[in-house]
Formats: sequence, C-alpha cells, structure tokens
Amino acid sequence: MKKTTLALAILSATAASVQAGTITTDGPDIVVKTKGGFEAKTTDGSASFKLGGRIQLDYNNYDGVMNAVPGKDGSDLFFRRARLELEGHYQDWGYLMAYNLTEGGSIDLLHTTYMGWGPLALLTFGQQKEDFGLEDTGSSKRITTMERSMPANAFDTGNNLGVKLHGFNEDITYSLGAYKQNLDSNNDLNSAITGRFVVRPIHDGSNLVHLGVGYTTRDGDFTQLGARLGVRGGDAGNATRVRARYAAGVVADELKAWNAELAGSFGPVHAMAEYFDGKISGAMAAPDIKAQGYSVQLGWIITGETRTYKNEIGAFDKIKPAGVGGAYEVFARYDELDASDNKNVAPVQVIGETGNTITVGVNWYANELVKVALNYVHADTDQKIGGEDSGDAIVSRIQYAF
Amino acid sequence: MKKTTLALAILSATAASVQAGTITTDGPDIVVKTKGGFEAKTTDGSASFKLGGRIQLDYNNYDGVMNAVPGKDGSDLFFRRARLELEGHYQDWGYLMAYNLTEGGSIDLLHTTYMGWGPLALLTFGQQKEDFGLEDTGSSKRITTMERSMPANAFDTGNNLGVKLHGFNEDITYSLGAYKQNLDSNNDLNSAITGRFVVRPIHDGSNLVHLGVGYTTRDGDFTQLGARLGVRGGDAGNATRVRARYAAGVVADELKAWNAELAGSFGPVHAMAEYFDGKISGAMAAPDIKAQGYSVQLGWIITGETRTYKNEIGAFDKIKPAGVGGAYEVFARYDELDASDNKNVAPVQVIGETGNTITVGVNWYANELVKVALNYVHADTDQKIGGEDSGDAIVSRIQYAF
Amino acid sequence: MKKTTLALAILSATAASVQAGTITTDGPDIVVKTKGGFEAKTTDGSASFKLGGRIQLDYNNYDGVMNAVPGKDGSDLFFRRARLELEGHYQDWGYLMAYNLTEGGSIDLLHTTYMGWGPLALLTFGQQKEDFGLEDTGSSKRITTMERSMPANAFDTGNNLGVKLHGFNEDITYSLGAYKQNLDSNNDLNSAITGRFVVRPIHDGSNLVHLGVGYTTRDGDFTQLGARLGVRGGDAGNATRVRARYAAGVVADELKAWNAELAGSFGPVHAMAEYFDGKISGAMAAPDIKAQGYSVQLGWIITGETRTYKNEIGAFDKIKPAGVGGAYEVFARYDELDASDNKNVAPVQVIGETGNTITVGVNWYANELVKVALNYVHADTDQKIGGEDSGDAIVSRIQYAF
Repeated sequence: MKKTTLALAILSATAASVQAGTITTDGPDIVVKTKGGFEAKTTDGSASFKLGGRIQLDYNNYDGVMNAVPGKDGSDLFFRRARLELEGHYQDWGYLMAYNLTEGGSIDLLHTTYMGWGPLALLTFGQQKEDFGLEDTGSSKRITTMERSMPANAFDTGNNLGVKLHGFNEDITYSLGAYKQNLDSNNDLNSAITGRFVVRPIHDGSNLVHLGVGYTTRDGDFTQLGARLGVRGGDAGNATRVRARYAAGVVADELKAWNAELAGSFGPVHAMAEYFDGKISGAMAAPDIKAQGYSVQLGWIITGETRTYKNEIGAFDKIKPAGVGGAYEVFARYDELDASDNKNVAPVQVIGETGNTITVGVNWYANELVKVALNYVHADTDQKIGGEDSGDAIVSRIQYAF
Repeated sequence: MKKTTLALAILSATAASVQAGTITTDGPDIVVKTKGGFEAKTTDGSASFKLGGRIQLDYNNYDGVMNAVPGKDGSDLFFRRARLELEGHYQDWGYLMAYNLTEGGSIDLLHTTYMGWGPLALLTFGQQKEDFGLEDTGSSKRITTMERSMPANAFDTGNNLGVKLHGFNEDITYSLGAYKQNLDSNNDLNSAITGRFVVRPIHDGSNLVHLGVGYTTRDGDFTQLGARLGVRGGDAGNATRVRARYAAGVVADELKAWNAELAGSFGPVHAMAEYFDGKISGAMAAPDIKAQGYSVQLGWIITGETRTYKNEIGAFDKIKPAGVGGAYEVFARYDELDASDNKNVAPVQVIGETGNTITVGVNWYANELVKVALNYVHADTDQKIGGEDSGDAIVSRIQYAF
Repeated sequence: MKKTTLALAILSATAASVQAGTITTDGPDIVVKTKGGFEAKTTDGSASFKLGGRIQLDYNNYDGVMNAVPGKDGSDLFFRRARLELEGHYQDWGYLMAYNLTEGGSIDLLHTTYMGWGPLALLTFGQQKEDFGLEDTGSSKRITTMERSMPANAFDTGNNLGVKLHGFNEDITYSLGAYKQNLDSNNDLNSAITGRFVVRPIHDGSNLVHLGVGYTTRDGDFTQLGARLGVRGGDAGNATRVRARYAAGVVADELKAWNAELAGSFGPVHAMAEYFDGKISGAMAAPDIKAQGYSVQLGWIITGETRTYKNEIGAFDKIKPAGVGGAYEVFARYDELDASDNKNVAPVQVIGETGNTITVGVNWYANELVKVALNYVHADTDQKIGGEDSGDAIVSRIQYAF
C-alpha cells in the first residue's frame, strides 16, 4: 500500500465500513467517468483518454425502384455501422482512432491534431473528414434521418488521408485541407483541395442560424455521379441508383463541386437545407458529367429538448433526453438529385434522370446512448430503372453510441 | 486540482508520505478493477464498462483419418480464437462487442440488450448466439474439452443477426429468437427461429441438475450436414469430416433440428450429455439429408473446486482455482455423429457414415485467467475417408482470458 | 454510495468544495495513469492493464532507381503502421495484443508470457518477435531512421507463432525460440530456430556498450533474398529492390543467417553497426542464394537527452524530451546489401547486384508521444534496375505512440 492515501489508512482504522481499496495516480489528478464507455482526464488539462464505439443495427423493407429485382420486395437486417473509437490527447497533441468492425475491418478515422495554436488554428494530419456539406460533416450518429440525403451522398468526399487547417469560435467554423485522392500511373499522388466556411449570425442557448458554403476540386479518375434512393442494405452491387456515368473505358480526371448550407434551430424545432452542384471533366475528349441536388428537412422534438450543435465542426450534435422516458422527435425531409443535364450526351449514360425521396420518421432517444429510429421513405424517378419509377421503404434502426 | 478531494488536501499538508494524485469522478461513485483487463462500474448500478479478451493458442499433432494426407502425420500451431471484448451498460441498455482478431478480423458478437423488464424478459438485438445446445450456448473459453463435440458442431447455429427474447431465474433459463440466415435471390431475408428451454430441478451452492431442450427451423440454402473429427487447424479446406452432402448443384431450402441436454454437477465432479437430431429438406425434389448424434462427458476437478454455472445463459462458466498452485481437472468424453441414414439415397453422398471420438484430457487452471489444456483424441469412422478409418491426435492449448 | 470511503463522507459534510464522486476498488489498491492512453496497476504488483497504440503517417517523394516507373517521380501519403495495443498481467502470466488496423486488419503481436521463474527465464507463447538483429528486435517506434536498414530488412524474421525462452539482467539479454514457418504439403509444420545473445560490458545511467550475435535456421519454401532501397509506400508490388531470386518454379527449403551487433551510447550521442550474412539452400539441385550486408549509424540529440535502452529486449527504447520545446536529434546512416555473389549462377537472377543508401535526417520529439521525422535518402546500385542506378528520396513522418 505504498501509494495509498494516508486519509484512508487513518480512517479505516476507526471506521469498520471502509473496506474498499484506494485508487490513486502518480501524475496529475484524474477524473474518470463511465456511461457504457470509459473516460479519464487529468484535472490540469494535460492529458485525456476516451474509449467508446457505435453500433447501428438496421432492418429495412423496400420495393419498386428501390429493389434491384423488379416486382419484388427486398429486405435486410444488417449492421449499418459498427465502430470501436478511441481518442485522447497529451499536451498539445490529440489523436482519434475509429475502426470499422464490419466487412473485415477498416480504418474509418485515424488522425492526430496539433492544438498548440488554439481553437482557431488546429492542424489535423491523417485519415479524416474533408468537411464538405452540413450532413456529411456531422456524425452519422447525430443526423436526424437514418441516411443522409441523395445529393449529400452523391458529393460525399469521404474520409481521406491529408492535412487540414481548421478552426472555430462561437461565430464561425472553417476548414481548408489537401487530401490524397489516389496514386496515378507513375506512382505519384493525385490530390484534392477542399474548403468550408460556416457563419452563425444567431447562436445562443437554444437558438441557432447556420450558413455555410463549401468547395472541392479533385484530381483522379472519375466515371460517374449518383446516389442510392435513400435505402441501404440488400445487394449493394445491384442496388438501384440515380446516376450519370461514362460508357465503359471512358474516364475523366477532375471533379469539382460546391455546396451551400442553411440551418436554423429554435428550441425543439430545427430546419435545414443543403444544395450541391458539381461536375466531372478533364483532359480527355469526353463531355462533362453534371449533377445537382438539394434537400430540405424539418424536425420537432416533441418532448422539448434542443438539438445540440458542435462549434468545432460546425454541425449538429447529440440530443440529450431531459426526462426518464427519453426524448421523441418527428421529422420530414424532401431531397432530389438531378442528373438529367447529361441526357443525349454520348458517351454518358443517364439512369433514372432525376430522383427524389420523401422521408418522414420518428426517433426515440431512449437515453443519451440509445436511439431507436423508424423512417418511411417514398422514392420517385423521372425515368424507369429496371421497369419501375417509384418505390416505398420502411427502415428502422437501433443505435448504441457509447 | 479543482476537483481534488479536500481530504487529501488537508492530509497531504501534514503527512509527508502522501504524494499520490487523487482520482475522482464527476458522476456517481465508481468501482474499478484490473485483473489483466479493466472494469469500471458505478456503485448505483447505472453504468458499467469492461474491457477484456481471449487468446487460445493451440498446438496439435494428428494422423490417420484426421489428416487429409493419407499415411502422414499432420501438425499445426495456430490461434484457435483471439478476441478483443468490450461490454457495458447505461441505465436500461447494455451492449457487447467481441471482435475476432484472426483471419483478417470479423465480428464475433455485437449486440445491445434492453433490460428494463428485468431478468425474466431481456430483449437482445444484433449479432448473437442463437442458444441451441449446452456446449454451443456456453462460452468456448469455459468448455472442458478443447473442441465441442461432433454433433454440437454439426448442428451449431453460429452467431447471427437477430432479435432474441430471453430470461432466467434460479430455476429456469429460456430463449426464443428470430435470426437472419441469408438473403434470397430477390434480396429478401431468409430467417431462422430458434428456441431453448432449460430447467434446474437442483441448484444450490455446489450441486446442479440441468435439463434442456432446443429447437431450430431455418430457411435458406443448405447442402450438407457434418463435422470434423475432433481436431482443428491444418488445412481447413481439405480436413476430413464425417458428413452427408448433396451432389454438386443440388440445394435444399430448409433445415430443422432439435436437441436435448442433461447435465449434473456435484462438487468437483460434473457429467453432461447432449443429443442432436436434424434434417435438411425443402421444396426441391431432392431427398432429405439426415443426421443425429450424441456426446457423454465426465469431469473431475482433482483440487476440489466446483465448475461454476451461469443462470443467465443456462450453461457452465469458469473454474476459479482455490489454491496458489492452480486447479487440476481430468475428463473423458465420447461423442458420435451418425450420417448413415443417407446411404444409398442419391444424390446424397455419405462420407465416413458414422464417426466417433474418444477424448481424454487434463486441464490446469493456472489462475483465474490462464488455462493450459492437453487432450488425447482417438477417432473411428464406419467407412474409410481417404483410405483410413481411424486416427489419433494430441492437442494442447494455452488460453488467456482476461 | 455503499463502497464510498468514509473520509469523503465526513469531509463532504463540512467542506462545500467537495462535490466529486469517489473511485474505489474491491481488490488491491490501484494506481491509474493517462497520457493519451490508459494504464491501471495494482500497488501489490499482482495485476496490470495498459491500452495504447501507434500511428505512423508517412509522406514521401522519390525518383530514379527508387521508383518503379523509369524517369518519373513517385510520391505517397500513407499509414506506415497503425496499431491498437493492449497489455497486462495477472499474477505470473502476462499478455500482449497488438493489432494492425491497416490493410483490413491483422495480428501484429499476440502472446502470453510465464514470468514465474523471474526475469532470467521468461517463457513466451504466441505470435512474437523472433529477436534477430538490433534494429529488428527494437520497436519500429523507437528506431532513429524512418526505415530499418536494407540488410535488417533482407534478413528480418518477422513476427511468428512459437515458443521463446528469454531473459535479461543489467549485463545480458538472451533469447532462444522455435517458431512456425509454414505448413508443408503433408499439413505438417515447418519450423525455425532462432537465438540471440547480447552482452553490455558498459551500462550505467548514460553510457552503454552493446555487443550482440544472432543465428536463425529455417525450414520452409524460400525463393529470394533482397530488400527495398530504403523507401516504402507507392506501388509495393512493383517497387524496386536489390535482390537475388530463383527463376520461376525453383524453390529451396532452407534459410540460414547470422548477424553481429555493435552499439554504443554516450550521453546524447549514439553509434551502432550491424552485419548480416545468410543463404538459401536445400535438398533440390539448385545452387545457394547468398547475400550479406551491413549498416553504420551515428546520431546526436542536440538538446542533450540520452536514448534510453530496454534490457528486457536488448534494444534501444524511447527518447523523453527534457524541455518544453521537445528534443531534437540529427543522424546519418550508411547501409549496403550485397547480392553480387550470385552473379552468373543460373537459375539465380540478380537484380541491382549491390545496393547502398545514405540516409541523413532530423527528428523532433515534440513530447513523449509525438515524433516528427524528416529523412533524405540517396540510393545507388551496382547494376541498373529499370534503366536507373541511383535515386533520391525525401521521406517524412508524424508518429503518435500513446
């Protein structure tokens, strides 16, 4: 008991009720916490450690244009995401490690951040979000719908290796980064540059107005723009998508896109809208592939909680239920992805032309960690895909984020 | 030191021996523990976290019908299992994450449980055991032999995605679940229903009688029933198995099986027996594939400890060595898998007809975490496989379960 | 608050500043620590737990003989290594689990050690280093250069499944092990035997002289000896290497190699040299493949720290920066791999004949966890590879080892 506190040694001699062993540290004082996961941080702010994860288990049932087999219903039960997540810091350097447990394992996020210049100039190295779009920048565990909108998916930059300068205060959030797209035929890097700027003209305890713009320009090999019709799972290889693509063998080497974000949150109500516009082009003689789209969403937390917001990334964060029974939220979203500009532009093939989905749903936040979601999705396309131009889906999720 | 306890602040001023920093929490009081792994739980029962894992390193040497190369000895050194395991809960919701580190990584178990209705009605969502059979329901780190019996393997339902209602008290354990088998050609779910009921007419400190029955019915594509002859490792693709299978191209779409379990534990001695019976059948013109089998096992912990039992799953649990030198156990098992009913039933091919193994062994439980096992296995088959109808194996394991 | 300490209960009644909950344990007293990762150990030495990891993010740019595309520059940004690492012990048994997160996930190290005979006779079972060579035995996060030398790579035994007896005191470190090389065509084990002996005639606080020898003999299938020219990343399949290999279809079944190690560390300066010599031979009529090589390295920590050394493995360990600005180190290395003995020995093909690299660089140890490295590498080969016989590279790394 060399390192035990004298306090206990003295008191345990006089108090029969003290039987527990003591916990100390040989460094700065530490605060620990568990809510399913585990956290430890020094009280002097010099170091921290946090272990958590997320499980998203989805069940869905869908038909029509949403299923690759004409005239048939599809359904699936699957892990949409399952991750082990570690983060921490020591002095001026932080790290984050998020590992996908599904499909044989892969790195989702893995980066280190230099924080020595303060929150207005953070420098992050490694596999990270590029920060393009409001839904794509926010966490998949904090979005309202089960799936992000079609245009957000079509122009999702993904998580890539790179360097990002980013920062925030109460009023603004910005990021500007350079990323690896892939290697070219000389073993040389193709890169992407992506920037985003967000301003919050209103941001107090329960009211928020968020305006944002983003831009990305990417070297590499690109062949198509498109997105699924709001449903995941099933046979991914054959799932139906609205898209425009080159005929086999044609490739272009540049993708540019921009977007605009508008969001407001007033007590238990939030509204948000996003617009995306982009094209694939390049040195070859092939014509451009163009696409654009938008989404509009409205949500109301019936039990009165406010959707929290994270200045650091400029995106919505968790909903903390206030009462014992949890929080309930209802929402509706309309989104559209338009690939019709490419009609009659050989060698570009257009599938579905313009697609849209209407999504309505209810979320139950059973506690801080658990979200149960039920969404109904109706999809329409201007052109038939596999003989069908509309479809319906019921999708549901249990999410455990510890 | 904002959050440090005043106790230390006061005492450290007067006691030179107090140099350690303090550990506190900003939530409910917490108890932590380490025995190689790490645990933290709040004293009010509202939250917990546990990180552990298991390593099973096997060495074996086998000949005759157990090796795919006639007339030759086979041997291997390999990880039978290696897992990282996380579990925890917050309020009414628990989770468990067990990740296989071998063979490129895969999810072993990943589920969340609603516990709000109490232990007699737990609802578990995600990838989980279906609970079919005594050995299969128990943990691989808590079985007596190194490998489960042939019939337990032949009818093992595996870990699947699904929903299970289950519960327990001192006297009974039950489970009833619906699971994903796979997707059919329409992208639609094939499902399985599995139930198990266990009753314990005797269950006090060191005496137990366990009776159980189980049933499973499964939609999907099935082509064979069979099991290895008690030995793992080596070239899995060519390892010899007793089995009955359809000729290439024939598939049936239904599997049904039931089992009965009987076990008793009296101080340091335990006995257990299991019977399995099942068949593959379905809409196609092909005949059924039938198999059945049983196992009988007797074990004695020489050092006097009792094999513990877990009511929650209705299966045996760990052996905790009482003394400094660890615990020693000896055991014997006979098991048999009979696929001979399918003889002369084209297009079913029968390999080995009926196989049985005799396994004797000794286990050393060096401490609560470490088990060292040495098993001798003799196998016989009614029909030659690759020119041989008997074989012998020496198999050994070091298991570290923290 | 059943298990809370009475100390707090009493004091919190009288001191308004005490609001934090208490942390206790129901076993031996525990000391915890966080520096980005997390550690807990009992004060009586009976148990411990540690969770950490490493991230190595590399950017490089290289040309000439170092790039597989003649006349072109290559470059890449990639994770050289990314691992999650767990270790702990309970009573006499320890374990270590290091999992590679890159390339779909794989086991790097996974072993358990019996420590009951004391530090001079440790017995480790599982996937482990074979301990052959000074750089190869040391951790990849503790070497001075970004990449180990060419001969160290050419004769690297890798991490293998096996059993190793090893031990150390202040003056010596030894290891002797038997390992799995692979399975032969009978499903039988091919094995390797590797031993290493290190003596430290001088070893006080800041001065060290290290002498070592190693030997390995391996059964299995071997076709070539060689190594990259000091640069990783890019298209690994086509990267240029100095090597000697059999023509297609020729295989030998034995590899033998030995090495000698010499190192000295005097305050902030260290010098080290290694020599390797080995050959592939065997039962078939094919001639031997021979190779040998050496490396010489000199390093100086400008800020005055000493490179620490780990007796347990007989290799250098971390550099702990003394000041707030971190530690700075400069170094130079020359290494050479000579495969020219195999010239004109059909069916052996020789590529590059003899290759050497000169590496100079600077390391910034920003804090105990973070190392930023910048290396310049110049490579020469005696014979052109893809039309070129020299090349230059700039390679850089951010390493976070928590």
